[in-house]
Amino acid sequence: MSTGRVEAFSDGVMAIIITIMAFGIEPPIGTDLEALGEVVPSLLVFALSFAPIGTYWNNHHHLLSAAKKITPAVMWANLHLLFWLCLVPVVTAWVADHYEESLPAASYAAVCLLAGAAYWLLTRAIIGANGRDSDFARAIGSDLKGNVSVVAYSAAFVLAFLSPFACYAICLAVALMWIIPDRRLREVS
Amino acid sequence: MSTGRVEAFSDGVMAIIITIMAFGIEPPIGTDLEALGEVVPSLLVFALSFAPIGTYWNNHHHLLSAAKKITPAVMWANLHLLFWLCLVPVVTAWVADHYEESLPAASYAAVCLLAGAAYWLLTRAIIGANGRDSDFARAIGSDLKGNVSVVAYSAAFVLAFLSPFACYAICLAVALMWIIPDRRLREVS
Amino acid sequence: MSTGRVEAFSDGVMAIIITIMAFGIEPPIGTDLEALGEVVPSLLVFALSFAPIGTYWNNHHHLLSAAKKITPAVMWANLHLLFWLCLVPVVTAWVADHYEESLPAASYAAVCLLAGAAYWLLTRAIIGANGRDSDFARAIGSDLKGNVSVVAYSAAFVLAFLSPFACYAICLAVALMWIIPDRRLREVS
Amino acid sequence: MSTGRVEAFSDGVMAIIITIMAFGIEPPIGTDLEALGEVVPSLLVFALSFAPIGTYWNNHHHLLSAAKKITPAVMWANLHLLFWLCLVPVVTAWVADHYEESLPAASYAAVCLLAGAAYWLLTRAIIGANGRDSDFARAIGSDLKGNVSVVAYSAAFVLAFLSPFACYAICLAVALMWIIPDRRLREVS
Repeated sequence: MSTGRVEAFSDGVMAIIITIMAFGIEPPIGTDLEALGEVVPSLLVFALSFAPIGTYWNNHHHLLSAAKKITPAVMWANLHLLFWLCLVPVVTAWVADHYEESLPAASYAAVCLLAGAAYWLLTRAIIGANGRDSDFARAIGSDLKGNVSVVAYSAAFVLAFLSPFACYAICLAVALMWIIPDRRLREVS
Repeated sequence: MSTGRVEAFSDGVMAIIITIMAFGIEPPIGTDLEALGEVVPSLLVFALSFAPIGTYWNNHHHLLSAAKKITPAVMWANLHLLFWLCLVPVVTAWVADHYEESLPAASYAAVCLLAGAAYWLLTRAIIGANGRDSDFARAIGSDLKGNVSVVAYSAAFVLAFLSPFACYAICLAVALMWIIPDRRLREVS
Repeated sequence: MSTGRVEAFSDGVMAIIITIMAFGIEPPIGTDLEALGEVVPSLLVFALSFAPIGTYWNNHHHLLSAAKKITPAVMWANLHLLFWLCLVPVVTAWVADHYEESLPAASYAAVCLLAGAAYWLLTRAIIGANGRDSDFARAIGSDLKGNVSVVAYSAAFVLAFLSPFACYAICLAVALMWIIPDRRLREVS
Repeated sequence: MSTGRVEAFSDGVMAIIITIMAFGIEPPIGTDLEALGEVVPSLLVFALSFAPIGTYWNNHHHLLSAAKKITPAVMWANLHLLFWLCLVPVVTAWVADHYEESLPAASYAAVCLLAGAAYWLLTRAIIGANGRDSDFARAIGSDLKGNVSVVAYSAAFVLAFLSPFACYAICLAVALMWIIPDRRLREVS
């Protein structure tokens, strides 16, 4: 089994998530700066959903390119990741409306954690499909970024109940860590 | 004719069905657990639509991979399957609102039955295109899962008028049967 | 230039048109047959949009498969076709609400005519790209179906002002003519 | 790394932008010409969003076809372009409602400018990935069209505060400049 169709399907889902958010932005009512200003929160929700989904798409691209073989387990692990990514826009929208409250922040961290854990599981499933001696497994190595992400998002979830802003800071730090895709994965892709 | 574009188109339709449902979830109004709780039904509809479409996507992937040749009949059979899959979210939403009533349960079973029958027809059409002696036909064999699904969904439809929960139990059992894609299909793909 | 990306883009647009219509169907309010009956018109709009887009997709698939070369003119002609196909759902919805009136019927025929003419132009553009001596040009031949469609839709447009039902009958007849994709195109694809 | 998946993802996003706009058109309420006339503005918004996205898609197709190698920088530059393209429909809708006002015109020009600058950056990133001696770099040459577009959109943005119509005229002129994709890019693709 090749990875072609799994990539195409994931591309479709991520393209839709990214694009539909833009249609949640209503044109301003009126033509002055104040009217334009009222659109800023929904623009922000769009940008804040776009960035993590874009980051996932970028890393997912390299992960799947490096995977030579896939199994049904990989396909289900991939669907599971897409499930949580689909929930990113709605939790982002909730946070945008109530960014000073604990429960929206914790929900945001929870979705990030579940998506991060799903990505970690997908990595495991691809290693299982390609073998521990495969180029893929060697490129992943100890999967430091994957492990750190899951631990950091767990911390972000707990911290949300003490300080939502500490929670957001951790989520941002994890996202920044993934902006540059792994060089070793790119080399075996 | 290769299967590439039929797969791409089906991926597109299934990716959209899966993703759009997530946009039916409105952010909670308020920031306490009660507000979050009010979102649970729409989260559930999303999850309950995601699972069967994901299962169809997984099995469809293997079915088309194993098919070497396609004909216009296969293309129409595939469109017919996509037609019924498009209706899964709306019947799921109806059931979520009125899960104790017979008519929503029966409608859900009816859409499952029609999608299952369309999948069965698609299998027949691919056998017709590849020949009864093809690897594909041998891998399908007597198509036990396909036949059982159609019979079971028919029973679920009738049972819905006696007990909606018996109906759901059958639908769930059929879905579980399809979680692991057919090994023989995977071997010829 | 290969046809791959033109096909992928067209698949995307047609997949979205087909699928989004299904999300226009609201779950019934209530659980009796009357409530279910109130959903029938929107189900019908979905089915009546699905059928022509599905037919276009099928024929477009064979048209592009048979085209060996494309040019920027082909790409623009293809976008032009997609433009009119995007309008099929909205005119179908208008007809569903007011099927006995002339203007909705005429608008429906107009969109069919413009899409049909765009398909005819796309065929011309592909012949232009591949040459009058190409297999593609020979397979198209005199393009009887393309020419008849444009003439018939023009007649349907005019007739709509006399009898909407005569208009619909012609549109249906043209659609039926395209259900089985052209054998000669399939042979050179 | 090949360009396949970047193209597929971009196709997905642009296909959705184009198509979803069509679903913003509500069927006319009533069946006379006046009712039909009330739909014209939303039809116009659809057409005016479709045209630039279609133009971008066409040029993007040739740009990526000509690029032999991509890097993570190209992938991020591409996502950045898609981000601004997603905002085309909403600014178009705002302009359609208030075309005589400066702020909507300036916002439209701003989105055009940011998308144009993103396209310029994408071109730079692809040159960076393929080398200054590559066929791609030679085909781009001094990138006259890319440079002129950024300058012209900047002028359109400023002019919007003096005369919205001068702003629209410049935007239209730039769009016309891109209708015929670059011959040199096509030759190396």
